[in-house]
Amino acid sequence: MAAVASVEPIDHDLSPSRAVRLACRSGAISGSTAGMAPGYVQGNLAVLPSDLANEFLRFCQANPRPCPVIGMSEVGSPYIPALGRDLDIRTDFPGYRVWKDGEVVEDTADVSGWWRDDLVAFVIGCSLSFEEALLQEGLPLKHVQRGTKVPMFRTNVACVPAGRFAGPMVMSMRPLKPAHAIRAIQVTSRFPAVHGAPLHIGLPRMIGVADLMKPDYGDPVEVLPDELPVFWGCGVTPQSVITEARPAFAITHAPGCMLVTDRRNTEFSVI
Amino acid sequence: MAAVASVEPIDHDLSPSRAVRLACRSGAISGSTAGMAPGYVQGNLAVLPSDLANEFLRFCQANPRPCPVIGMSEVGSPYIPALGRDLDIRTDFPGYRVWKDGEVVEDTADVSGWWRDDLVAFVIGCSLSFEEALLQEGLPLKHVQRGTKVPMFRTNVACVPAGRFAGPMVMSMRPLKPAHAIRAIQVTSRFPAVHGAPLHIGLPRMIGVADLMKPDYGDPVEVLPDELPVFWGCGVTPQSVITEARPAFAITHAPGCMLVTDRRNTEFSVI
Repeated sequence: MAAVASVEPIDHDLSPSRAVRLACRSGAISGSTAGMAPGYVQGNLAVLPSDLANEFLRFCQANPRPCPVIGMSEVGSPYIPALGRDLDIRTDFPGYRVWKDGEVVEDTADVSGWWRDDLVAFVIGCSLSFEEALLQEGLPLKHVQRGTKVPMFRTNVACVPAGRFAGPMVMSMRPLKPAHAIRAIQVTSRFPAVHGAPLHIGLPRMIGVADLMKPDYGDPVEVLPDELPVFWGCGVTPQSVITEARPAFAITHAPGCMLVTDRRNTEFSVI
Repeated sequence: MAAVASVEPIDHDLSPSRAVRLACRSGAISGSTAGMAPGYVQGNLAVLPSDLANEFLRFCQANPRPCPVIGMSEVGSPYIPALGRDLDIRTDFPGYRVWKDGEVVEDTADVSGWWRDDLVAFVIGCSLSFEEALLQEGLPLKHVQRGTKVPMFRTNVACVPAGRFAGPMVMSMRPLKPAHAIRAIQVTSRFPAVHGAPLHIGLPRMIGVADLMKPDYGDPVEVLPDELPVFWGCGVTPQSVITEARPAFAITHAPGCMLVTDRRNTEFSVI
């Protein structure tokens, strides 16, 4: 069917991803999007005034593993058509955090009232995309089996700084048996646009992680004697860097409250 | 230029690989082929009577990681044109071992006198192909830097048995820093026809390797505190399995004395 611009108010082409976004928009969904619309790419949010946005884009460009930008709005526009035809950045996440000078000033389900003509929205890929591929491969992910958050660590690996943005790389950790770890490296290497291959394996002290049971974010999972800790670049990195830069104004998604896009995870696989 | 069958006795199309083979044939080369004709695939040799050859092929088919067959002759034929137009299995290795009932009965540079109408030759890929790719990637390989043999271990991982062929998998080990290990997994995954990705990483006791400084074959290299031992399937496996099966007759290449083929290593890369 040819693609035709539509102005009809009712769209019967309700994909699972769009259904989630509309439910967020109406307030019917207000919590974590984990497990929703399987197969569709979910993304983190960072909204910054345009002067900072240019620096932030440079930061992401220099640090693609923890900060893979999968969509970006025009200055002042709350839309990113490449991620969903009628997607609205202001309403389609279940929850937001509004920041001023590095402090949260509001937790809200709708940032329409905060929108400004100078804002730029960044949607950043997250590990849910490659985790789906790992699970389809039959690789066990403990935090998924338990329904807990993946453990994340502030490492001693520095991001490449850009303008006012700098700081340590945050990495997520999944314990895997050696053969599974090798397979996981192969599988996630196919997803360079959503964190890609691991950044570290096996020797956590080398990246400044002294205690695997004390993650800086998320929930702990133990690494058994027949497992290796495998570390991937994590989308918490850009949030951590933004809050440390203390911008005069910023909006992020609330933890776990991601944007469900119309892009499929498989589209992000390079081979 | 169109490919035309030639019957001329003198061939001026002397590729580096063919030059090595002719030098082996004349006796000018009698030792290790390591480092010769860079870029060309080298292979191990196993020659068996046809009744055993069928079982051995099944064994290789069931164990492609340690036993990647890259070429095979017709019964009784000492030629494998797919690996080199004028290649002669009987003369083109620098050295051979002739086996009877599991014992070496001759070390020789020419097995023409031993050839029989019921023999089948297998050429099996070796790690030189993927090591070239690792070195081109800038990954340091200690045994190459030192000019020693890669350390190889008889692991507790059993090969899939087939007929009279069975036994433990032999793996070669290369110490690598974690980030290099991840890159090495990516690079060698592109070479499924020549051992492919590693089979183990990081926890050698899990595969029955108690002392990394005591390899069963090759020379030891130490694994430093900031390195992980990475293990690949090794072409010594089929030789080890053949000698344990004690066939009435067999021919193998002498250690380090490989066949240099006209195939290029890059041809074996899948992406």
